[in-house]
Amino acid sequence: MLRDKFSRPLDPAAARLSASTREDATLLPYDVWGSLAHARMLTARRIIPRRDGATLQRGLRAIARQVERGRFRLDPSLEDVHLNVEAALSSRIGRAGGRLHAGRSRNDQVAVDLALYLRDALLDLEFGGTGVVEALLGRARSGDGRGVVPGSTHFQPAQRLYWGQILATHALRFARDVERFRSIRERLTDSPLGSGALAGSSLPLDRALTARLLGFERAGPSSLDGVTDRDAAVETLGALALFHVHSSALAEELVVAAMPELDRVRLDDAFVTTSSLMPHKRNPDLAELARASAAPAIGRLVAHLTLLKALPIGYQRDLQQGKPLLFDGVADAIGVMRVLAPMIATARYRSSPARASADTASVELADALVLEGVPFRTAHTRVSRFIARLATSDRHLSDVAAAELWTAFPELNGGRFRLPTAAEEPERRATAGGSSWREVRRLVSEVGRRARTSSALARRESQRIERLKGALGAPRVRPA
Amino acid sequence: MLRDKFSRPLDPAAARLSASTREDATLLPYDVWGSLAHARMLTARRIIPRRDGATLQRGLRAIARQVERGRFRLDPSLEDVHLNVEAALSSRIGRAGGRLHAGRSRNDQVAVDLALYLRDALLDLEFGGTGVVEALLGRARSGDGRGVVPGSTHFQPAQRLYWGQILATHALRFARDVERFRSIRERLTDSPLGSGALAGSSLPLDRALTARLLGFERAGPSSLDGVTDRDAAVETLGALALFHVHSSALAEELVVAAMPELDRVRLDDAFVTTSSLMPHKRNPDLAELARASAAPAIGRLVAHLTLLKALPIGYQRDLQQGKPLLFDGVADAIGVMRVLAPMIATARYRSSPARASADTASVELADALVLEGVPFRTAHTRVSRFIARLATSDRHLSDVAAAELWTAFPELNGGRFRLPTAAEEPERRATAGGSSWREVRRLVSEVGRRARTSSALARRESQRIERLKGALGAPRVRPA
Amino acid sequence: MLRDKFSRPLDPAAARLSASTREDATLLPYDVWGSLAHARMLTARRIIPRRDGATLQRGLRAIARQVERGRFRLDPSLEDVHLNVEAALSSRIGRAGGRLHAGRSRNDQVAVDLALYLRDALLDLEFGGTGVVEALLGRARSGDGRGVVPGSTHFQPAQRLYWGQILATHALRFARDVERFRSIRERLTDSPLGSGALAGSSLPLDRALTARLLGFERAGPSSLDGVTDRDAAVETLGALALFHVHSSALAEELVVAAMPELDRVRLDDAFVTTSSLMPHKRNPDLAELARASAAPAIGRLVAHLTLLKALPIGYQRDLQQGKPLLFDGVADAIGVMRVLAPMIATARYRSSPARASADTASVELADALVLEGVPFRTAHTRVSRFIARLATSDRHLSDVAAAELWTAFPELNGGRFRLPTAAEEPERRATAGGSSWREVRRLVSEVGRRARTSSALARRESQRIERLKGALGAPRVRPA
Amino acid sequence: MLRDKFSRPLDPAAARLSASTREDATLLPYDVWGSLAHARMLTARRIIPRRDGATLQRGLRAIARQVERGRFRLDPSLEDVHLNVEAALSSRIGRAGGRLHAGRSRNDQVAVDLALYLRDALLDLEFGGTGVVEALLGRARSGDGRGVVPGSTHFQPAQRLYWGQILATHALRFARDVERFRSIRERLTDSPLGSGALAGSSLPLDRALTARLLGFERAGPSSLDGVTDRDAAVETLGALALFHVHSSALAEELVVAAMPELDRVRLDDAFVTTSSLMPHKRNPDLAELARASAAPAIGRLVAHLTLLKALPIGYQRDLQQGKPLLFDGVADAIGVMRVLAPMIATARYRSSPARASADTASVELADALVLEGVPFRTAHTRVSRFIARLATSDRHLSDVAAAELWTAFPELNGGRFRLPTAAEEPERRATAGGSSWREVRRLVSEVGRRARTSSALARRESQRIERLKGALGAPRVRPA
Repeated sequence: MLRDKFSRPLDPAAARLSASTREDATLLPYDVWGSLAHARMLTARRIIPRRDGATLQRGLRAIARQVERGRFRLDPSLEDVHLNVEAALSSRIGRAGGRLHAGRSRNDQVAVDLALYLRDALLDLEFGGTGVVEALLGRARSGDGRGVVPGSTHFQPAQRLYWGQILATHALRFARDVERFRSIRERLTDSPLGSGALAGSSLPLDRALTARLLGFERAGPSSLDGVTDRDAAVETLGALALFHVHSSALAEELVVAAMPELDRVRLDDAFVTTSSLMPHKRNPDLAELARASAAPAIGRLVAHLTLLKALPIGYQRDLQQGKPLLFDGVADAIGVMRVLAPMIATARYRSSPARASADTASVELADALVLEGVPFRTAHTRVSRFIARLATSDRHLSDVAAAELWTAFPELNGGRFRLPTAAEEPERRATAGGSSWREVRRLVSEVGRRARTSSALARRESQRIERLKGALGAPRVRPA
Repeated sequence: MLRDKFSRPLDPAAARLSASTREDATLLPYDVWGSLAHARMLTARRIIPRRDGATLQRGLRAIARQVERGRFRLDPSLEDVHLNVEAALSSRIGRAGGRLHAGRSRNDQVAVDLALYLRDALLDLEFGGTGVVEALLGRARSGDGRGVVPGSTHFQPAQRLYWGQILATHALRFARDVERFRSIRERLTDSPLGSGALAGSSLPLDRALTARLLGFERAGPSSLDGVTDRDAAVETLGALALFHVHSSALAEELVVAAMPELDRVRLDDAFVTTSSLMPHKRNPDLAELARASAAPAIGRLVAHLTLLKALPIGYQRDLQQGKPLLFDGVADAIGVMRVLAPMIATARYRSSPARASADTASVELADALVLEGVPFRTAHTRVSRFIARLATSDRHLSDVAAAELWTAFPELNGGRFRLPTAAEEPERRATAGGSSWREVRRLVSEVGRRARTSSALARRESQRIERLKGALGAPRVRPA
Repeated sequence: MLRDKFSRPLDPAAARLSASTREDATLLPYDVWGSLAHARMLTARRIIPRRDGATLQRGLRAIARQVERGRFRLDPSLEDVHLNVEAALSSRIGRAGGRLHAGRSRNDQVAVDLALYLRDALLDLEFGGTGVVEALLGRARSGDGRGVVPGSTHFQPAQRLYWGQILATHALRFARDVERFRSIRERLTDSPLGSGALAGSSLPLDRALTARLLGFERAGPSSLDGVTDRDAAVETLGALALFHVHSSALAEELVVAAMPELDRVRLDDAFVTTSSLMPHKRNPDLAELARASAAPAIGRLVAHLTLLKALPIGYQRDLQQGKPLLFDGVADAIGVMRVLAPMIATARYRSSPARASADTASVELADALVLEGVPFRTAHTRVSRFIARLATSDRHLSDVAAAELWTAFPELNGGRFRLPTAAEEPERRATAGGSSWREVRRLVSEVGRRARTSSALARRESQRIERLKGALGAPRVRPA
Repeated sequence: MLRDKFSRPLDPAAARLSASTREDATLLPYDVWGSLAHARMLTARRIIPRRDGATLQRGLRAIARQVERGRFRLDPSLEDVHLNVEAALSSRIGRAGGRLHAGRSRNDQVAVDLALYLRDALLDLEFGGTGVVEALLGRARSGDGRGVVPGSTHFQPAQRLYWGQILATHALRFARDVERFRSIRERLTDSPLGSGALAGSSLPLDRALTARLLGFERAGPSSLDGVTDRDAAVETLGALALFHVHSSALAEELVVAAMPELDRVRLDDAFVTTSSLMPHKRNPDLAELARASAAPAIGRLVAHLTLLKALPIGYQRDLQQGKPLLFDGVADAIGVMRVLAPMIATARYRSSPARASADTASVELADALVLEGVPFRTAHTRVSRFIARLATSDRHLSDVAAAELWTAFPELNGGRFRLPTAAEEPERRATAGGSSWREVRRLVSEVGRRARTSSALARRESQRIERLKGALGAPRVRPA
């Protein structure tokens, strides 16, 4: 196809490098949908005869059904999804198939396919991400949420927290990720279809009509931008990288908490494996894989940015290599989301001795001195030295009785201050957003509210889009 | 400082690796502002004596004036900006300085400093980016905008365009970049101050008050998130990488257009250099540097994402290495913006012979056949072969007279179609967003409108923030 | 398999995320080879009964034949290649199959598989890279090599060169790439087999024997290193990234040289495509794809480095995600090599007018003044101004007659200096490595010699390895 | 300077973007050395008068002394190091200074400066890396080396090891890093000086002489390659990224081992910090910073590769942005090396209870069954179930007496097998490279030998180079 003017077929190695049919399978349903809209518009504008227009649409709808049933195979010798669909159409309906490409280029066609795909993919990411948020909040609201753990900084026990605050804070991050996905999707308003190769068309196309049929707000304002713009793809890869960084942090949290020496969390049997050699092992492989997924996600973002660097405006073939980056990125993230949600939902908090964190009330002690008028820096120094002294006889703050405390810090003598027990400690910090249970509950509520809003918006948009697909007879297939 | 409990000072090589005073210079004004807000709040909540509170604020305001005059030097032996400011304060006002850190940790302090810095930095990026947009639109609106050039795809002449469409499409990209900067800034609503080390405080802090004094909407909902979250930094580096990718595309466009063999654009003498060896050279060095800047921008984004990978929630010292990535990234982008704007404003379109693009009307010819009822694919094949035949005698479409055309394509005989001249060609594609002048004008208007909105919003926010700085006596300094 | 001790099967989404059978297809032949060596050693050391040892090896050889015929399918429900081979073996030979894994872990097994794969892959890269070098040298040695082109810096004509020097310099880069591949391969001396999970084995394994059977020099010196080390994978991805950067530079060179406005190179029809819309296009798509390939290559290198960051010594499951990065990286590079070689071999130099480079002799003029005693900086300034003066009347150095030159530069009056013609210009620079034909020929010879050495070494090693495979009955399959 | 032919000075923002004086400070000593060699050669070839040649060299030597005393300041208005040195020279010796640049371009000048710098930098990295290796081996050879720890995979106790094997395996990695640095350095054989702008020179330069004076083996074989090649810079950044990945793994090992819940290692007070808020903290900040350093190191590698992507052969200004990536990368690595070495040397092994690893002898149990004729897979299953059964009553292998063992595994009854104690366990795995002390000692010896060889080679080369600097009077300054 398309080689009439050349003296020679494409070199075989070149044909292999050039074919994009493997990755294009993902675009197939969207290519058919875009073609349906284009065919209807060409007919409406009488650019092609009414009868041929009807035949075209019938042929495309038949292909749509094949796609839905997974029966449309892409032939690599036909190079890409666009030529495959056109060839299948022509073999089905004959010469009228040759009318479909009027006023269209593969440059605007792949752009509209990508935008349609991306809108669906972002919706799936919104659903998947919300699932992770809800799994975390579910645990935070359960009894486990009130479990007390030594919160760490620098991998060292710092201050005691409710396990629920840790869970809900991870949830907050994922809630933001979902909002980022939505924000990218909401800016997919401009249809590139009708941009032609780069300059629009001399045929009287109705770009507003195809935009409407495909669920866009309007036709994009520059044909050059229509065929060149990959901002949304890069932004999606950026948001995915951040999502995976957040996942890797949660995964590390679990891997560390599941160390037998800490034993703060027990992962369910459905999410651990053993060793082919060492029968006693109980390995958090799934958490490790979730942690690792950040690496290829970052790699793909880099690759797409680097791809675009220094490409002048107007389609360059380099852009082809952006597609698998995007498709693999979306599929990976959804795969991780689908594991994180049930893994978290079934992970159990373990109350552990935690002798290691026996000095975590040091700040409360210093704060008490501050309230008695001691400058904080002085209080910090005095408490530092007191703890250092205790350590020389291997003792900790939690071992200190009131009398000893009052000797060391006479300001506190007879006052209301006493060192908190482990269970009391998180309650002491009652500042907004702090570790007290009231604040953790507020946090859980806020994140829950944001997740519900996200869900509702995604559901509504999803229904709108499926209706549009149905109206034209496009394949009702989702990326994930 | 802070080493009372250790038996030994920090190892000297360790002290060098650990000090962040070089990069912290950028945070200095924000550290003082945050401290002023904290001091006022501590006083209001009577956590510190009123008189000491007044002394603290007076001392900090004096330091603010020093900062404004560039007279505050950070001492590396004091490790970071926070300890430097506290030390300077104590040496100025004595023991009361030791009261400032009550209820505060360097963890929430650096988080609030970063948020305040980032808000200012994003505003500067919005202003700078808008400047580039306006420079491009200025040229598009000028006579140059109506210059006709062979639009390219694959670095090969494709279809003729107005130079103005190319300029305005680049402007559209930068307008989106500015909107991305704004969107990040508008989500900087939550004050981390009062998050303490990770768990809030047992002192009765009023986080809502410090949030208000610093121009945030509210106190953040989780202390753990307050000290750990670096989403905005990563998003900024992501938006910067995309901005630089767009700049690199524009730069490549100029470097190629300035090749003497094409001679489509002449850069002003103020933006070219010569060779130390070859006296005839006229090198577009500045465009090359703008092109290259995408590389470190991508590197910084990768570095920050990689830094965060697998860090559990709660402050880890790794986060320190995010700061120079952000500061250098912002400074680089602003440096490039300040060159791009005047370089574009002074670059001149050159009308060139462009024999090379003598077949660009081929699509219009095929379209004409479509309108006569020929299926597009057939039309494409026939035009392909016709051009291939012409090429064997080194001729082009532009050399073909009407009679010859009618012989080859009898459908067109006597019809209204004639091949466009170079000057007419862009007008032929009158579809929405296409290459006709009406559409280019609409594009220019839309981008101009968006740029004006962006400018106005940034200006308003900038005024609000400067008023807040003024009210507390904070340093009125901008990052760029 | 391997889940006896758990109360539950792996969660289905977890099983999907966890399975590596898609990428492991690449390791299959090496897994069988490694197993053959292990089985022979276990038998030799009488760790398993002689008869069972013979059965094991027979079974594995039968599987080897299946692999060679492409008839061994990996079942994702069996998780990875190792469990697939063990299951196939057991179903073929029964209970004796269960003896194979004695003294072995999947941790050392995958390490040895990767090393065996990588050695073969590097050989294929050495052959492929040498093919590109030879294609370039072939053109440099042909008549095209003596074609004169305006050598550029900053995309601006600088000094005239032979096209052959450009080709041979690209060849020199690729020759270095090949040497880098070889250097990585030559350091693959240590067999990891026998490292067990991380600590070796309490069985009396003969690690030296398996090392010998698999073509290694010795058993690696630390079992911990054996299962953890991924240096060679990262180095390979690094060398591939550099190879692709070199390819992208060559590709850009061709894309630019094929612009009709420059018309310095004509790509063969077998390596260009046209547009689905614009019948006149002649697009260098393959060169663009080669240029673009640098982006995912860089992305993979980043991904692998990031993957390894902060993983303590000892196998972590994260390592699994390194495999597809490596396999895709090798396959991509070989795909590009197979296109570059014939694309270059068929690309033709076009002698072009090149008016644009009419001042390239400016350095020779300044040099002539230097030889008359003028300080270079003065000479540079005078020639600069002279050219600037010519430019005001749109003239160039090449338009200047001897008399005019002598007026401007009296020092040269009557001397031997005259401005070189375009054809003479490259000959003037006769310094070592310079642009004269004698030096270009020396360059071509040197690079040719290095390529021949590389070829010979790779061929010899390849023969050694295939003999070893044959001796044990391992699958004789190559990665590419 | 160099703007005689332009109508206008460089735009001020452009001048700021264009200046490279900040990073060029690192190149200063090498620029002076290169200039000294060039001046001597110009004199020897009588391209410049003997007397002026002597003056030039005297002037350059005076500047060298200034550089050594840190008294040479680069002026940004003079753009780069090359023009700064030439200007200083001319102001010192007058008109003769203008003779220095004959036959030289900034393109070959920066290339030779970079090569000279890189050779010194790699030597410093070799010394620094060897220091880390020796610190690790020192601890492995000490009593700490024989401490037994639960070796982990998947962050779960796997098999007991000597702490010395872990230390020596980290040392092995760093020994390889040092060898990689050396290998890059040993390939820095070709002098680029004399390549001119891109094409050599029409002056009768003696490139072999300057190569010799600067310590290279020969003049590079292609002037085009001389000015364009950045392979060594990229390879160095690649080797640095790998070094930092290794450092991050060691750092993570220490951070985890220093968790109070594990308490396997105690870092010296000189390498820990406390919190500004929490007086009880003992934070491994330095290890965290070493861990984090991998992130910018990866970022720089990406940035340099991306920078080079698709740059045609011949100098492009983009290359300038490679310099700071390289200089910062080297400085960062040396900073980390200087902390790692003493931090490791002073870190102390802590013998810890390690109840958590009470099943680590499971493989030895299965191996014993294998030696009694049980197929390994059966043995693995039986041991798995046995351990699972023990776990239901919270027991472990280490709690099982011989009688109970023989009941469960009758094959072992009366045989020689007994479960190893914690202290015996590492000795059981006596395979080559395994965990027994004999093998650990062999590992320590091998790594020690390699480190000594590396040291000796670096020292010898370093002496050779310093002699060459001395002979010409070049600045004797090292990068680190």
